[in-house]
Parts: sequence; C-alpha cells; structure tokens
Amino acid sequence: MEITVMKNIFGANAEKADELRDILKEKKVLMVNVIGSPGAGKTTILEKTIESLQKKGFNVAVIEGDVATDRDAVRLQKYEIPITLINTDGACHLEALSIEQSLKGFDLEKLDFIFIENVGNLVCPAEFDIGEQHKVAVISVTEGDDKPAKYPLLIHEASVMLVNKVDLMPYTNFNRDSFMKDVTQLNGTMDIYEMAATSDPEMTDWIGWLESKLKSL
Amino acid sequence: MEITVMKNIFGANAEKADELRDILKEKKVLMVNVIGSPGAGKTTILEKTIESLQKKGFNVAVIEGDVATDRDAVRLQKYEIPITLINTDGACHLEALSIEQSLKGFDLEKLDFIFIENVGNLVCPAEFDIGEQHKVAVISVTEGDDKPAKYPLLIHEASVMLVNKVDLMPYTNFNRDSFMKDVTQLNGTMDIYEMAATSDPEMTDWIGWLESKLKSL
Repeated sequence: MEITVMKNIFGANAEKADELRDILKEKKVLMVNVIGSPGAGKTTILEKTIESLQKKGFNVAVIEGDVATDRDAVRLQKYEIPITLINTDGACHLEALSIEQSLKGFDLEKLDFIFIENVGNLVCPAEFDIGEQHKVAVISVTEGDDKPAKYPLLIHEASVMLVNKVDLMPYTNFNRDSFMKDVTQLNGTMDIYEMAATSDPEMTDWIGWLESKLKSL
Repeated sequence: MEITVMKNIFGANAEKADELRDILKEKKVLMVNVIGSPGAGKTTILEKTIESLQKKGFNVAVIEGDVATDRDAVRLQKYEIPITLINTDGACHLEALSIEQSLKGFDLEKLDFIFIENVGNLVCPAEFDIGEQHKVAVISVTEGDDKPAKYPLLIHEASVMLVNKVDLMPYTNFNRDSFMKDVTQLNGTMDIYEMAATSDPEMTDWIGWLESKLKSL
C-alpha cells in the first residue's frame, strides 16, 4: 500500500511538472531550480545574479523554499521583484504543485527568469522534477571535495554546477582534481563555474549560461 | 490513507527506538546521533573524538549512514573499531530498524560509545528517533549564522551543538551574537562547544560532555 501511495505522488508530481514546463516555454520564461546544502551560498548567489540580470534589463522573479522563517525572501526584497515564499513546514523539498500555486502569483508575460531556491538539502530536492528547465547544483568548497561522490543524484540531474566560496580554498584541504574527477564521472556534460559570491562576485560565465539557455527556449 | 500509513511508520520507528535505548542503557553504552549538513565536519569530528576516547581507554563503535559510497566508513577504518555502514540508497535519513540491524553486529558488552553519523542533512534526520540517548547537532561557521533559525527542529531536538570550523570565522561574515541568540531562543538548555576539528582539534569540553553522559546512564 505504501508503495502505491508513493507512486501516485511521484506520478502526479511529474505530470504537473511537465505541464508547468510547457507553459513556461510558451511564455519564453527560463525557470531554474537551485539546489545546495544549507549555507552553500544559494541566496548570496541569487542576490548577485539578480543584480547582474537587472543591469542587463531582464525581469526576474524568485520562489523561495524554506523549512521555516522568511529570512531568505526578506534578503531579496531590496530588488523589488516578485517573490513567493513557500514554507514547507518541515518537508525537505519542494513539489510541482506548490510551484504551480506560486506561478499563479506571477505575470509570466513580463518575466524572463524565475529562480527557485529549494530547501537547503542535497538529497530530497534532487529527486523531484518541479517544472524547471534546469537544475543548478551549488556546492561550496568548504563542504569538502567528496560531496559530489557522496550525493550523486544531484550531480547526475543538474545541468550546471556553481562551485562557490573558492576564495576560502586556501584555508581548506579541498582537492580540486579529486572533486572534478568525481563530477566528470557522474556527469560528463555538466557546465561548471567557480565563484566567490560574497567577496568577488564575478559571474560573467554563469550569466552568459543563463542568457544562452533563455535564448534557446 | 496516506496519513495513516505515515503514522504507522512513525509509530513503529518510535517503539523500536525506545526498545534500543532500553538495551543500551542496560549495557551501559552511550549512543549519540550526529546530525549536520553535508560538509559540516561530522566525519573529521568523529576521527578526533575517537582518537581522544581511545587514548582514555574507551571502546568505540561507529554506524555510518550515507546515501552513497563508503568513503566515511573507509576514513574511520584506521582506528580498528567496529564500523557498520548503512547505505540508504537515496533515503535522506536513518531509521531505528536499520540501527537495530547494525547493533546486532556489535558486542555491546565491550563498548562504551556508539557514534551514529547520520546522512548529511539538517531536515529529515532531526525528525527520527533512532534509539540514541542524545542528538548532536554539528554546524560549521562557513554555513552562515542563520542556520539554527532556518532549521529549527534539529536545534530543538539536540542536546548539544558542536560549532565547527571556527578557524575560518575571520574569513566569513558569521555573526556569533546573532547565531547564539537564535540558538538560545530555540533551545535554552543546549550545551554548545566551539571547535576547529581539522586545524586545532582541542575538544576537552566535548569529550568531558560525553564522559559525563556515559556516567549518568
């Protein structure tokens, strides 16, 4: 009985995700699902990304997924963009149904990009298609070079990886060769961009990636 | 129907957890459940903790919970202690039933401490009682000072918090006052120990905490 219930949930979620993706494609909106550990730097990366995209004249919205508090959503209010906060009330990931509800609050005609900041977690969010065109994996070097191998599903599912906090690499035992070897074994086609979002928010390549994916919709 | 299923799962898990705790108490074994984000430093803290406890003549065993790979278990083999690896095959937490299986592989008469390293995740592991006497929250300063507020259940459930990577604090915007204020609001009785497990593994207070909890079994 338990297995049946789970299958139904996954099935309904996947169907809804496909439906949302069709709508977004029609409206020419790129929606990305940002996944990383607690404290990997997801919100800081979003801040810098929004600043860069706004300078280029793009219109951005954000869906913030959090187990509790509105802290990340509050941090993004300064950009005067549409923001929806989903408090999962303990659940460890977002699902397509709640994304559908959030999208209803946005005027898709006016948007170019929607960023979903998923719950801080490398496990559960990787399992759920929530209607995004791409999953973005955020891993910070302070987490250690073994994280891709230890959380392989996310690496397998993501189109792009942002390796954050590279400014702290000299103070850690992070082995870039070992890290890259694991990543390449799990996903040979992944685009990878290194950054230091708080200290040196240079993200030309990452912004270029977003623009190219928007164009190819 | 789904709610009933979930209640049964939680109910069976809680009963099994109580049973395990009774056995451990009778055998005078302290079992702690170590929970933290991916890369918070759980395995490194375990390494230094095992070294300290072995020097004092204590007998230690470890249950390693990982979504994939045996890397953490392999790191601990050098201590020549009993280690059980539970690969959750995608699941985001450990449950009491798999801990019961692991305990069957240990000679409890000969052990003083069992450390369970849970799956790297601040959300799901906090929800499950797996028979431990205490939950240990590991949070590293590189994750940011907002993590206790954003993942409140773990802070509420844990008896002790290890604040790791304090050697990296000067390179981050970690605000200790804000962090401590949030922690105290969520759990006023929690013991808190700061450490830098890789660079300065001074953990007298933490080892003292473990010894006092073992004595009071």
